[in-house]
Amino acid sequence: MSDDDRHHVVIIGCGFGGLFAAKALKRAPVRVTLIDRTNHHLFQPLLYQVATGILSEGQIAPAIRDILRNYRSLRVVLAEVEHIDTEAQQVHANELGHPVTIAYDSLIVAGGAVTSYFGHDEFRRDAAGMKSLDDALSLRGEIFGAFERAEAEDDEERRRALTTFVVIGGGPTGVEMAGQLKELSRRALRRNYRRIDPHATRVVLVEGGDKLVASMGDRLSRITARDLSRMGVEIHLGATVTSMDADGVDVTLANGSTERIDSATKVWAAGTRASPLGALLAESAGATIDKSGRVEVAPDCTVPGHPEIFVVGDLMALNNLPGVAEVAMQSGAHSALTIRRRLRGNEEAKPFTYHDLGTLAVISRFRAVAKVGPLRIGGFGGWLLWLVVHVTFLTGFKNRFGALARWTVSFVGRGRYERALVGPWDTGQDRSADSA
Amino acid sequence: MSDDDRHHVVIIGCGFGGLFAAKALKRAPVRVTLIDRTNHHLFQPLLYQVATGILSEGQIAPAIRDILRNYRSLRVVLAEVEHIDTEAQQVHANELGHPVTIAYDSLIVAGGAVTSYFGHDEFRRDAAGMKSLDDALSLRGEIFGAFERAEAEDDEERRRALTTFVVIGGGPTGVEMAGQLKELSRRALRRNYRRIDPHATRVVLVEGGDKLVASMGDRLSRITARDLSRMGVEIHLGATVTSMDADGVDVTLANGSTERIDSATKVWAAGTRASPLGALLAESAGATIDKSGRVEVAPDCTVPGHPEIFVVGDLMALNNLPGVAEVAMQSGAHSALTIRRRLRGNEEAKPFTYHDLGTLAVISRFRAVAKVGPLRIGGFGGWLLWLVVHVTFLTGFKNRFGALARWTVSFVGRGRYERALVGPWDTGQDRSADSA
Repeated sequence: MSDDDRHHVVIIGCGFGGLFAAKALKRAPVRVTLIDRTNHHLFQPLLYQVATGILSEGQIAPAIRDILRNYRSLRVVLAEVEHIDTEAQQVHANELGHPVTIAYDSLIVAGGAVTSYFGHDEFRRDAAGMKSLDDALSLRGEIFGAFERAEAEDDEERRRALTTFVVIGGGPTGVEMAGQLKELSRRALRRNYRRIDPHATRVVLVEGGDKLVASMGDRLSRITARDLSRMGVEIHLGATVTSMDADGVDVTLANGSTERIDSATKVWAAGTRASPLGALLAESAGATIDKSGRVEVAPDCTVPGHPEIFVVGDLMALNNLPGVAEVAMQSGAHSALTIRRRLRGNEEAKPFTYHDLGTLAVISRFRAVAKVGPLRIGGFGGWLLWLVVHVTFLTGFKNRFGALARWTVSFVGRGRYERALVGPWDTGQDRSADSA
Repeated sequence: MSDDDRHHVVIIGCGFGGLFAAKALKRAPVRVTLIDRTNHHLFQPLLYQVATGILSEGQIAPAIRDILRNYRSLRVVLAEVEHIDTEAQQVHANELGHPVTIAYDSLIVAGGAVTSYFGHDEFRRDAAGMKSLDDALSLRGEIFGAFERAEAEDDEERRRALTTFVVIGGGPTGVEMAGQLKELSRRALRRNYRRIDPHATRVVLVEGGDKLVASMGDRLSRITARDLSRMGVEIHLGATVTSMDADGVDVTLANGSTERIDSATKVWAAGTRASPLGALLAESAGATIDKSGRVEVAPDCTVPGHPEIFVVGDLMALNNLPGVAEVAMQSGAHSALTIRRRLRGNEEAKPFTYHDLGTLAVISRFRAVAKVGPLRIGGFGGWLLWLVVHVTFLTGFKNRFGALARWTVSFVGRGRYERALVGPWDTGQDRSADSA
């Protein structure tokens, strides 16, 4: 059978969903085309470590081509999908300026999620998201740049604003970011400055709900709040950011009062919405999308009326499953297995069932919270579990040891390797140019 | 004695010269202000490894504040020097937008060198220099981006131009860069692409003189040319680049004929000139500068008529000393020792004598050329020596092990960690905005 005769699976997106779909197709009698807008797979759970200088970008973002180099019948296309023609079964994309048309027999759409400012798109200018490598590098420049600007600042009030960090969103990303910012200032920058005292850095965590890491349950929420408070993180629950500018944020607190927090650096970890690919599918396949932009799928992850189109991961709306890496990995693999079964003549539509392996969040060095099956683990035990899971799952064997070495230096010692300010860090990068 | 009464040494620049001057003043009865335009010390000899994805930026560019955090009477100022008032003994600088005036008792000017396009400033647009971290990161995006564009390209000729790299300049930097580009394409990118054959990548090394690494002597020049040729690098000696555009370069060869080389990525390793700080000193201290912009100094590294001003490293013109890291380190330390001696009442002007510890260049994994005292070592012996020297001198204890681990992966294996394309890599960054 020549290459071109084989069933052609096109996968859009190489996050956890797309990558695990591709891997599950390794020995299948298909050829695979994997389309992504970037050249790297991103290990998103560790993005906050790039933003705070612990890991380098390469350590959490291996090149897709390199991860999949031994997948001989797989081709990687670096392109932005512009239209999906579900009638002709073709994907139209922009491949580095060239328009390309890629026909498919089966399509797996794993577009993931993008930062959502919940109707406040003007916040984008002042608060970096936490979804892409560009986000993290931009934040890294802002964070280390803020300390530099504070050291150069004569005005005490302004200096205070430059060393105040507001993290919006109390899910795992926001909690980890707030904890790391405090660690950074308490330990990593010690004795680095003569004028400012990084120890006096203010970290404010603003959460709209009444709990931190709500998905982990009451006990871990309480542990998280307690541990962060002990570190000196100021926590506002039931609080909403109503406006924002370059110098600070206005927050409406739970008691209805309004507070102005002067702060140069804001981190937006409050929310995401599904990739615009969902809207493309709604348009061309008549799919229904929910209010987060996710595509409502049948129990086997296919688009109703289009058994050849699968939607997985954060872009998929199914049984209220959360937008976490584990769901993406398992639904990606499930779609690939359905395709393999069909090629063997078995058309039975097996529903996707999610096996919750747990959630984890690091609070500080040696402290984390973990929910694994019926277990709820806080403190050092949670942290050890976090370490094991991340070392195990960090994609790419070589990166794993490098990351472990860095963690040793950062957690046991006080090092932050990646502090070099490069590019236009002191003029600020224009995030408003990003796509929503 | 209060801090402000102490003799105040101002050091401009934290390259090898400035850093070693600061270190030699650690226990002196002085206070020190170190001014740099960037927040990092740069280990320039390994810049080509950042450009080719082996090391991360943090591994060769530790934060200055962190290296010197235990120097209690030293202050780091992130600023650009705009004027030196040698009469009032004041440095005027722009500290992140704020004008600052810093008075000195002794001044050590260690401004280093910048890329020089030898009167062809228009080349800057098409050929990245190899002097700053921004240069290296910009090149990294261009190199890995060129392979991506080649993979997306239908036209074979254009594909060929995208996988042709022209390195201009056959000194150690150019030789190391050419060797690494060949290694990258031969080994690191193997099996990554479906359409292009990275193995077929063309690397052209253009050198104006009649020898590669001329400073290392005839034998090592021959070994270098032989090793690079065996790897497949095309070498043009006695050749000059006469014009350049986005698609290629025009070269006049040794025999007088002209050749057009179609190439998307050009690396300028042909030359440097002294930092513009030399011109500032010429203006205000009446110093003489040579044709490379270097300041002519007395045998003790001071500016004639200004015993309180020292010029060291690449900015210093003295006895035809080469612009290498060793000269900068030793002249920086020499100036500091002169200041310490004077503070003990010894005004004797000891001339600076350079101890040549040798030069090294890596050609490929396991092959390097080294000149150490009377020794000339090529091949594996030269490479081992290179490894020992770089692991020993790489500033910052922690970075050393990380770098060693990466080298193990890159030299023994085939890994290139840092391949993530970030920022505006596919639109090209506008280098023409850089200062000359």
